[in-house]
Amino acid sequence: MSRDKILLTPGPLTTTLRTKLAMLNDWGSWDEDFKTITKNLRQSLLKIIKNQGDYTVVPMQGSGTFSVEAAIGTVVPKTGHLLVLDNGAYCRRMATISQKLGIKTTILSFPESEKVALNLVEKALKDDKSITHVGLIHCETGTGILNPLQEISDLCQDKGVGLIVDAMSSFGAYPIEVTSLQFDALIAASGKCLEGVPGMGFVFLRKAIIEGCEHHSPSISLDLYDQYYYMEKTGQWRFTPPTHVVVALYEALLQFFEEGGQPARLARYEANSKLLLEGMKKVGIKPFLKEEDLSAIIITFLAPTATKYSFKTLYEVTKAEGFMLYPGKLTEIETFRVGSIGAINALEMRQAINAITYALDDMAI
Amino acid sequence: MSRDKILLTPGPLTTTLRTKLAMLNDWGSWDEDFKTITKNLRQSLLKIIKNQGDYTVVPMQGSGTFSVEAAIGTVVPKTGHLLVLDNGAYCRRMATISQKLGIKTTILSFPESEKVALNLVEKALKDDKSITHVGLIHCETGTGILNPLQEISDLCQDKGVGLIVDAMSSFGAYPIEVTSLQFDALIAASGKCLEGVPGMGFVFLRKAIIEGCEHHSPSISLDLYDQYYYMEKTGQWRFTPPTHVVVALYEALLQFFEEGGQPARLARYEANSKLLLEGMKKVGIKPFLKEEDLSAIIITFLAPTATKYSFKTLYEVTKAEGFMLYPGKLTEIETFRVGSIGAINALEMRQAINAITYALDDMAI
Repeated sequence: MSRDKILLTPGPLTTTLRTKLAMLNDWGSWDEDFKTITKNLRQSLLKIIKNQGDYTVVPMQGSGTFSVEAAIGTVVPKTGHLLVLDNGAYCRRMATISQKLGIKTTILSFPESEKVALNLVEKALKDDKSITHVGLIHCETGTGILNPLQEISDLCQDKGVGLIVDAMSSFGAYPIEVTSLQFDALIAASGKCLEGVPGMGFVFLRKAIIEGCEHHSPSISLDLYDQYYYMEKTGQWRFTPPTHVVVALYEALLQFFEEGGQPARLARYEANSKLLLEGMKKVGIKPFLKEEDLSAIIITFLAPTATKYSFKTLYEVTKAEGFMLYPGKLTEIETFRVGSIGAINALEMRQAINAITYALDDMAI
Repeated sequence: MSRDKILLTPGPLTTTLRTKLAMLNDWGSWDEDFKTITKNLRQSLLKIIKNQGDYTVVPMQGSGTFSVEAAIGTVVPKTGHLLVLDNGAYCRRMATISQKLGIKTTILSFPESEKVALNLVEKALKDDKSITHVGLIHCETGTGILNPLQEISDLCQDKGVGLIVDAMSSFGAYPIEVTSLQFDALIAASGKCLEGVPGMGFVFLRKAIIEGCEHHSPSISLDLYDQYYYMEKTGQWRFTPPTHVVVALYEALLQFFEEGGQPARLARYEANSKLLLEGMKKVGIKPFLKEEDLSAIIITFLAPTATKYSFKTLYEVTKAEGFMLYPGKLTEIETFRVGSIGAINALEMRQAINAITYALDDMAI
């Protein structure tokens, strides 16, 4: 069997062998040994946000989207009103989730090529006093843009509204610390910048908030309050946890701290991203976003305009060379995306750039 | 590091090394190679129920309970009325899920020591014509009792009501074939008798039913119709799948068929169960259920009445010997449970019986 392809994608991503080897054990989910893993995992996650006791973290089975639905359904009451700041596909997914939950939802749209504009958010909050919560995607993976989390957090605090952050693609790479930030809920998942395998999410919750959220959730499975309460009381998950995914995330977290935590991870991703951008520039491929708006997570590139170009061919040729790209997610413009995250560094990025260059040459672009 | 303990539990359970080794690869979830795994996995599952084209199967992220909620929320309309046949803890969980979903729910209770009684179900359906669906737990893991699935299926067909089956603990071990059975939805999970790792469920759905279920689900994440429709159209999961769990289940399924499928699996579990029962009898430990009602999945044993007995000690001593037991789930009587499922056979069962005997001796019982 050939070696795994390198995943240049925003998750699932390439994980270390050490992380995967942690899955070679079976665990009893009610046993003290596994409870210890869950406890240590939660403590490690809280360490990343520099929690001093005001926040908790609740893991949740399923994909990251399940945790977004769990967070909104648990934190925002039925009588609430969520303002979703929309500059991409994941923003719209958050709005769809909120609407489906029967929560009054207002979508404030921005161009996909622009960050969320603070003054317009401020105006929206001023104009509609019924808004109780703001929903923000930190790094919108649809384009790769990084939204101004600190400024939105400050604004929400100032206006006295709650804040729900989808930090799926940024958590672990960009600083998210409750020493300066305040939010009601912040969501991330195992298979992203912490470099675990996919299969669970986790939600950071302000204790003062979650303790008032009993009976909010319309779902048994996705009730974060119940999961929190039960886990605090028994040390166990309410329903069978994905034991192998959990231990893999824990092993990935050990490596995260060994590497130097968030600053080291961001430095590695930024180096990857810089190489990628330079390499693409050399073959005339430009990013969709302005350079100052790019994140080190994933870059959306404008597809070559040459008629011979097809994403399918680009994908297949680079895959044959050992690298998996990601399709674009914009409706109006043809793009493709390349991630910089996962257990990869300069070597893999140089090889990937060579593979992309080779594929474009192959199409005579 | 010591060898893994043997899990004598109804899932997570002991899996083969081959199944776990399948998790040593990373997969792109949108890639053709992974789509092929998903497709083959679904086809293999449908082969087990001897589907001739009337049924489909839809995998779902999360624990088995997530799939139960997804099935009820998708299949039973808001205007429906679910009759839950209750002889144990998992039956009551199904009722709680249905109630939380805002569906009219009637609980028909039976003693935990008895199978669901057909004549009483028939009477309930006759007395209340507003009942649209029956909810049945095939093997109630709370006690280990096996309920009469074929008879309930026949009755539901006869009365023209839908049937939702939680076959979490029985699927793969007991025959479930749509050549004789009919149901609207039947739910199972990866980490049970198919001997995969936990992290996903799957729901068999009658095509004629699921095709009429658009917009039923009050959840974005747990909408089986959307998951079905999207998967049929694109070959992908709607939201990030637990890739490693999926490939482990597929590898476990290959071994399931190599072993001889459901009849071979049941034969192995029955042999395990028989050894266990005989071994326990020798030390004076009796099952909670009548022998004819026992399943080969898990047996609930009455705890010794000696004052020196404690489950904690029994658990810890057998764990130190390499075997993990399961606590009882009955409220009125002290019991403990021992599972016969997982990648174990006569050798592990004999060792386990020795460990339990040693632990009881240790407490001077």
